[in-house]
Amino acid sequence: MKNIKLIIEYDGTEYHGWQEQINAKSVQKVIKDALNKITGEKIILHGAGRTDAGVHAFAQAANFLTNCNIPADRFKYALNGMLPDDIVVKLSEEVDLSFHARKSALSKEYVYKIMTGDSPSAIMARYAYYYPYKMDLDKIIKTSSYLIGKHDFASFKASGSSVKTSVRTIKSIKIKNDDGMIRFDIEADGFLYNMVRIIIGTLLMIDRKGYNKDYIEHILKSKDRSLAGPTVPAKGLYLYKVYY
Amino acid sequence: MKNIKLIIEYDGTEYHGWQEQINAKSVQKVIKDALNKITGEKIILHGAGRTDAGVHAFAQAANFLTNCNIPADRFKYALNGMLPDDIVVKLSEEVDLSFHARKSALSKEYVYKIMTGDSPSAIMARYAYYYPYKMDLDKIIKTSSYLIGKHDFASFKASGSSVKTSVRTIKSIKIKNDDGMIRFDIEADGFLYNMVRIIIGTLLMIDRKGYNKDYIEHILKSKDRSLAGPTVPAKGLYLYKVYY
Repeated sequence: MKNIKLIIEYDGTEYHGWQEQINAKSVQKVIKDALNKITGEKIILHGAGRTDAGVHAFAQAANFLTNCNIPADRFKYALNGMLPDDIVVKLSEEVDLSFHARKSALSKEYVYKIMTGDSPSAIMARYAYYYPYKMDLDKIIKTSSYLIGKHDFASFKASGSSVKTSVRTIKSIKIKNDDGMIRFDIEADGFLYNMVRIIIGTLLMIDRKGYNKDYIEHILKSKDRSLAGPTVPAKGLYLYKVYY
Repeated sequence: MKNIKLIIEYDGTEYHGWQEQINAKSVQKVIKDALNKITGEKIILHGAGRTDAGVHAFAQAANFLTNCNIPADRFKYALNGMLPDDIVVKLSEEVDLSFHARKSALSKEYVYKIMTGDSPSAIMARYAYYYPYKMDLDKIIKTSSYLIGKHDFASFKASGSSVKTSVRTIKSIKIKNDDGMIRFDIEADGFLYNMVRIIIGTLLMIDRKGYNKDYIEHILKSKDRSLAGPTVPAKGLYLYKVYY
């Protein structure tokens, strides 16, 4: 029995997210079906993060147990020969049997991309959210700093999602402007459902409505989703890295 | 009567090229239909370059005559409000009545993008050609220099295409490696059908087969398409700029 870890890049546009579900195309199902054919087994594939419909991944992590004697590093080539162009395995390697892509993860990093300017980009239409309004990026950076650290992010989770606790620790938020493309990098020990997209929507709302930057503390303390900003579109979001 | 010039970015993946044709979706037709609705006229839209199916544009140029009294710079917003996400008008401006997007063009610049490395990128799958073999980029740059200047490019045009002359002047070829993404920039006074894609395919072939770099002179002199390399895929090609 071997435990194989995969690092996977995908364009989420055509998928109903990572997780397998009935009557909808998922990234997990497409990879699992390919693994079943390669190994002749019934593979159980664990992913690190359940990306939503339309969300992309630069480096989703996953693992599966197999008795197949294909060398670990060859799974990458075998899979890429079968997978569609919008899913690519970047790495396959053998790991300790105790490794579990989700449970072993120490933290995750998500990236969110926003196009700014007078008109959107057609080439980036699937890969970034177009925001036509002016932004005070220095103010947004200062506002975002209030979120760093250990907080109860109840205001920043989609309503209806049930988790034991909504306390999470954000390790860092980096924001930079690359020639009109604004890139947010957020690393945390875990994320609530839609947390990144609600954080970005809230930062944009606070800037646009001219609220004081410490208004975000008020939102945090309220534990009230309705005070936070809108959930920005999935297409700007990337699962960027999983740390073990 | 006003003459309006447009600069247009598009993702060509879903289109059968720029040019309007029966029973196929074209970029020209989609823009023309929107202009007809905006102006209430029957617009004739001239494009600078007839990009093929799957070819993209950063800055296609086009023009049309109209009696509509919408200010020239507002056409951009009116069009972007109606066009799909994969076609974006970046600029609309009034130009002299003598301006014609194709006939007035002095030169055009195309970009071709190649992904290299151990595996392709899922995110760039629509926007670059994946070439898995090793490349000697210095040698390719030297080989390409033989093509610069005025030559008969008969060996570098798709067979069956009929033009008066296959003599063209390549002004520059720039090649650079941006972290494994190889970008070719070719500017010429005009291009034959499939000329950029055959040039790239030939440069790759000469490198891969280990031919001497002056073999490209032999291909040029032969005026024989069969000696040149294959036509590389459309998805790596971008109409980058039109010079007037």
